[in-house]
Amino acid sequence: MNNKPLILITNDDGYAAPGFNALINMVSEFARVVAVAPEIPQSGKSHAITMDHPLFIRKIRQDNNVTIYACSGTPTDCIKLAFDRLLQERPSLTLSGINHGSNSAISVIYSGTIGAAAEASYYGIPAIGLSLIDHNTEADLEATLHYSRKIILDVINRKDLPKPLCLNVNFPTLATDQIKGIKLCRQSRGVWIEEFEQHFDPKGREYYWLGGHFHDREDGDKTETDQWALENGYVSIVPVEMYDMTSYSTLELLKGIIK
Amino acid sequence: MNNKPLILITNDDGYAAPGFNALINMVSEFARVVAVAPEIPQSGKSHAITMDHPLFIRKIRQDNNVTIYACSGTPTDCIKLAFDRLLQERPSLTLSGINHGSNSAISVIYSGTIGAAAEASYYGIPAIGLSLIDHNTEADLEATLHYSRKIILDVINRKDLPKPLCLNVNFPTLATDQIKGIKLCRQSRGVWIEEFEQHFDPKGREYYWLGGHFHDREDGDKTETDQWALENGYVSIVPVEMYDMTSYSTLELLKGIIK
Repeated sequence: MNNKPLILITNDDGYAAPGFNALINMVSEFARVVAVAPEIPQSGKSHAITMDHPLFIRKIRQDNNVTIYACSGTPTDCIKLAFDRLLQERPSLTLSGINHGSNSAISVIYSGTIGAAAEASYYGIPAIGLSLIDHNTEADLEATLHYSRKIILDVINRKDLPKPLCLNVNFPTLATDQIKGIKLCRQSRGVWIEEFEQHFDPKGREYYWLGGHFHDREDGDKTETDQWALENGYVSIVPVEMYDMTSYSTLELLKGIIK
Repeated sequence: MNNKPLILITNDDGYAAPGFNALINMVSEFARVVAVAPEIPQSGKSHAITMDHPLFIRKIRQDNNVTIYACSGTPTDCIKLAFDRLLQERPSLTLSGINHGSNSAISVIYSGTIGAAAEASYYGIPAIGLSLIDHNTEADLEATLHYSRKIILDVINRKDLPKPLCLNVNFPTLATDQIKGIKLCRQSRGVWIEEFEQHFDPKGREYYWLGGHFHDREDGDKTETDQWALENGYVSIVPVEMYDMTSYSTLELLKGIIK
C-alpha cells in the first residue's frame, strides 16, 4: 500500500485492447490501478447487464501498482463486480477506455464505454469515458494519452467538481501539436440511420450486417456541440446525465392529457 | 390492406413470451401488427446493438392482421431491422412488452424493453414500454391488458401529444378492480446495490450470479414517483428522455473549472 490514489479502469473493447493497456501504463505512473475489462470485445453493449448467465473472473496480471482482471460479462458487469467483489477500497476515479472509435453525439446511448462510466458514477465516484475517434486499434495514441493525462489529473486534484460526475471525452485523430485544446460541449443532436447490408450464407439464408450513417438533426448553435469540436480540432468533453431518465418537460405537457 | 392503424411490437423476453403474445392478440383487435422480437430472452440488454455479428430474421407467423418475426439480436436490433427492412409503411405506434418484470426506477437504464422503446421514438413514432412487475411468466395479465388497451388507444387517438414520446408504463400485480387508476410519475431515485452470489463449478472454479436489492435515494416527494405509485395500487407512467444525455446543469458548473 502507498499513498498514490486508486483508479479503477474498464473498457468495452476487451482486456487485450491497445487503448486499455496504454491507459493503464500511463495512469500507473501516478496512481495504483485495478483494471477489470471484458474477456472479448463488447462494443455497442450500452448499459447491458448479465442476468441469465453467471460471470467468471480471471486475473490477468498483478504487480506492485497494477492488477488486471478479465470478466466474462459486459462493461457494466465489470464495474459492478469491481465494486462488489474486487476492490479493497473505494477508488478516487473510474476510467473507461481508451475506446477505439467515437462515442460522440448519440453514440453515447449505445456505448459500452459510457455505460460503464455511468454505472461507476452511481457509486459516487467521478467517472470518465475516453474515446479516440478512430476504429483502427493500431492508431497513434500519443495525443490522446497526453490530453487524457491532463484531464485525469484535473479531475483527481480539483476538490470542487460537481457530483455525480460522468464525462464523455472524445479525441480527434490529430497530433498533439495540432489539437487546439479542450472544449466543454453539449451532445450533438442527431441519430444513426441504419442501412443493413444483406448477405447470404452458403445455404442461401439471408443475414444482415448493421451499417448506417449519422443523420444530423442539429437545430441550435453547432459550435456548442461535441461533433463540431471534434471536426474543428478540439478534444470534446460532454458531462453526461444517465441516472434520472424522466422527461420533466413531457411530464408537464402530459398532465391533463393522460388521466 | 385495411384502414386499421399499424402497430410495431417488440419485447426483450423473446418472441415466445406470454406477455408479448397476449399484447399482440389484444392489439390485433383494433390494429394491424408487425411484431419483431428476439429469438431468446434478452433481459438487461439495455440499448445494446449487435456490431460484431450478423443478424438473422425468421418469420414465425403471418395472417391477415399479424406478422411475427424472430430476430437473432437485441431488442434495439429488432427495432432497427423493422424500420430498415421489415415495415412497408410507418407505424402509428411502437409497443415494447408486455415485459415480465418491473422496469420502474433505475431499471429503465438496464431494460431492453425500454431501450427498444426509446430507439423507436428516434424514428418519430410514439413508443410505449409495458411491464408487469412480476417475473413469473404465468402471472395473470388481465388487469395489465385492460389498462394497456386504454393507454394505447389514448396515445393513438390523441393528436396533441408531445413528440418525441416515449412512455415507461409499469403495472402492479393487482386485479383490475383493485387498481386505483393511472398515475403520471417521475422516475424514483435510487440504485441497485449488487450482491454477487459466489458459486463453484465442478472443477472448483469460482463464478458469480448477479443479485442485489434496490437502494432508495429518494430525496423529494415520494408520491410523485413510479415506485410509490406501484406500491400504492396505481399503474405508473413515466415519460422518458433517452436522446440528449447532456447534463446541462453540470456543463454550467464545469465552465471555468475545466479548460
